[in-house]
Amino acid sequence: MHNVHSSTQSTSTASVSSEAHGLSPEELSHAALETWRDVTTKHPLVQCITNTVVQPITANVLLAGHAAPAMIDIVGEAGIFAGVASAVLINLGTIAPSQQEAIPEATAAAKAAGTPWVLDPVGVGGLPVRTALAVKILADKPAVIRGNASEIIALNAASGGSAADSAGRGVDAGDSVEAAAPAARELAARTGAVVAVSGPIDLITDGSRSIHCANGSALLTQVTGGGCALGGFIAAYAASASDTLLAVAAAHACYGVAAEIAAGAAAGPGTFAASLLDALNALDEPTLIEGIRLEAVAA
Amino acid sequence: MHNVHSSTQSTSTASVSSEAHGLSPEELSHAALETWRDVTTKHPLVQCITNTVVQPITANVLLAGHAAPAMIDIVGEAGIFAGVASAVLINLGTIAPSQQEAIPEATAAAKAAGTPWVLDPVGVGGLPVRTALAVKILADKPAVIRGNASEIIALNAASGGSAADSAGRGVDAGDSVEAAAPAARELAARTGAVVAVSGPIDLITDGSRSIHCANGSALLTQVTGGGCALGGFIAAYAASASDTLLAVAAAHACYGVAAEIAAGAAAGPGTFAASLLDALNALDEPTLIEGIRLEAVAA
Amino acid sequence: MHNVHSSTQSTSTASVSSEAHGLSPEELSHAALETWRDVTTKHPLVQCITNTVVQPITANVLLAGHAAPAMIDIVGEAGIFAGVASAVLINLGTIAPSQQEAIPEATAAAKAAGTPWVLDPVGVGGLPVRTALAVKILADKPAVIRGNASEIIALNAASGGSAADSAGRGVDAGDSVEAAAPAARELAARTGAVVAVSGPIDLITDGSRSIHCANGSALLTQVTGGGCALGGFIAAYAASASDTLLAVAAAHACYGVAAEIAAGAAAGPGTFAASLLDALNALDEPTLIEGIRLEAVAA
Repeated sequence: MHNVHSSTQSTSTASVSSEAHGLSPEELSHAALETWRDVTTKHPLVQCITNTVVQPITANVLLAGHAAPAMIDIVGEAGIFAGVASAVLINLGTIAPSQQEAIPEATAAAKAAGTPWVLDPVGVGGLPVRTALAVKILADKPAVIRGNASEIIALNAASGGSAADSAGRGVDAGDSVEAAAPAARELAARTGAVVAVSGPIDLITDGSRSIHCANGSALLTQVTGGGCALGGFIAAYAASASDTLLAVAAAHACYGVAAEIAAGAAAGPGTFAASLLDALNALDEPTLIEGIRLEAVAA
Repeated sequence: MHNVHSSTQSTSTASVSSEAHGLSPEELSHAALETWRDVTTKHPLVQCITNTVVQPITANVLLAGHAAPAMIDIVGEAGIFAGVASAVLINLGTIAPSQQEAIPEATAAAKAAGTPWVLDPVGVGGLPVRTALAVKILADKPAVIRGNASEIIALNAASGGSAADSAGRGVDAGDSVEAAAPAARELAARTGAVVAVSGPIDLITDGSRSIHCANGSALLTQVTGGGCALGGFIAAYAASASDTLLAVAAAHACYGVAAEIAAGAAAGPGTFAASLLDALNALDEPTLIEGIRLEAVAA
Repeated sequence: MHNVHSSTQSTSTASVSSEAHGLSPEELSHAALETWRDVTTKHPLVQCITNTVVQPITANVLLAGHAAPAMIDIVGEAGIFAGVASAVLINLGTIAPSQQEAIPEATAAAKAAGTPWVLDPVGVGGLPVRTALAVKILADKPAVIRGNASEIIALNAASGGSAADSAGRGVDAGDSVEAAAPAARELAARTGAVVAVSGPIDLITDGSRSIHCANGSALLTQVTGGGCALGGFIAAYAASASDTLLAVAAAHACYGVAAEIAAGAAAGPGTFAASLLDALNALDEPTLIEGIRLEAVAA
């Protein structure tokens, strides 16, 4: 996701696996375009229970991407809303006690209503409160789990999967996407969720099928919420798809294409953040067809 | 407010009612200019108890508009501050338990001290916690209530006014300003507040007198807090006026003129948000005289 | 800090005191450059427990300045993280009950681990909850205290120092930096912290040695968090230095040089905020050598 030279690297790091699910880059790009079109015309309503640092950029990314954000995150309302929203984002970045209560209320209601929800396990691993909460709500069956490599490794281990050495530092990844691939596939297989690992080349997997996304810009890591907002964006796309794996790949690709455009227009991370919203809002089919870099990989 | 072709539509949707309050567009524009001048030179101190998603843009809009924001929102301080602030904004977007307690502390103190306060009933209607709180604090006599059409219809019905079918969806309006006009006038008459309904053409009414504002840009709906920040801006204007109806109209017009300028300078919603602050900060009398589109309408 | 004509004023308001600590402007500039280089290459991990209004800009300033922010602010995690972070920022702007508990947990752990921490006593004075908390955590020995003139005067008086008349209004300074200088020196001497007072010319003192910084732009006061984000930036610099006084001066100077560059590129406070991040990110040695305006002053 964070690689500005994506077109060259994508071919060198991924090998097409027609055995895995038989989709060529063109077919993946076509499926992504379908999902983008669906979101853009249907404006899915995305409930976000997310950390206070990234609430503005998350809402703005959703608005720019033609979805409708609603930050309903209090006890007594979070569950009601999860029953009517198109999708729900749960991000564990700053879980004050109120959110610690509202989150399981929302995930239980989402499960009951069949609303797809996305878990972003920010900082899970060494921090005990969020780690315990993440493990607990896994029982409510997230449709998608997205995080950096260290978070995915840590969540898999904390929830009963294989232990693995991780080099995470706070909320930053200290591990490579490649190092997290086994944990991502195991976590997907164990939970039934699509698992996405952010990095220079993102990995999206459902345990048996895997896709690499080479779109994105390193500037996304220099803007707070560059990754967290993607969690909301993924929720909007997951609301609109029959095949969640393809929808999550679509979200990464569309977001990443916009980031590449914004990086070309920006003088630094400040102007990049504004240009990212402009670019998301202005995405169109020719730009996406030209820009999307998705590739199936051997699981 | 959100109409980019405001000058043509304002003449077709509003009919001047000299019976209502005898003010021509020129007189309304003149009154707005007076209030703008007052805010710009006196820097009213606006206490904001508002949702965490829009706190940054709300503070920045107030600073750009030459007012002074202070986000004092905790129990034990909210009431003290409401006694000394020039005006108070109460926005119900993300009322964690701490804000649920601090808000009535602030509105009671504002009432006792005669500090004008603005209620923004974000999402009131289907969400029970905020709806109950909104109804409760109406007893503390807000000077202004601002919301989208669905919120105004819902708040009026929830507080004992006429029931009305609403098509609200979460925090978005599903109703037109016209459909909300009867509820707005009834809510104003019942509470003594000036009620403002945001839309392509805003309605501002005190129950007997009504004003339309045709300034604004559709881009305001694509930036999170575009409407919520207006609530803070209104509070600053309400602090500086003897006639609250005219002050609220002035706030809509000045904010809307800045939005029109920003829309002209922006490449999308990201750059628009930055340009809105620049434009608010740079407003001057010739620009406002040229740009303000206010019109009295038959109540 | 907020003076756009810094180069001329710095010479008129400060007199070099070789008695104080024997450092020429060139030597101060050289020391600042060393600290900047250290932060830029080591990426200190800065835990921020800060108000919700300024969390985005604080995180973005740290990222743009090549540090790593982590907003770990909940009970049960704040102390753990303070033990491993490079530095901690404590900002009292919106201390909901959860932060009221997490803050002393973090400061106690920082003290125990030897992690330097910065106190930003936003609004301390007339507001009782934050004032009591600020006084309490002074026992955990902040490495740095930064605020505006009114806050420094009020904190010194509230914690047992000399009483002083203050003209503070909410979170805005009503006093000049000069008026706060005696309180700043007394507070530094009493607590062992380096105390920084923001204003057109910033004062940084450890009680015996004092430095003036004439870098900055008045636009910083028109962006919410312009001062609060500096608190996080100071923490990053304090993590990287053996002489905290020089590190705090370095942070003011580097931040101020970036603000001057951004002011030159901006059309108003909205575009300034984005350009500030771009400028912080792009700072280099020639620009800093040319731009830094630090001067030792007689204590």
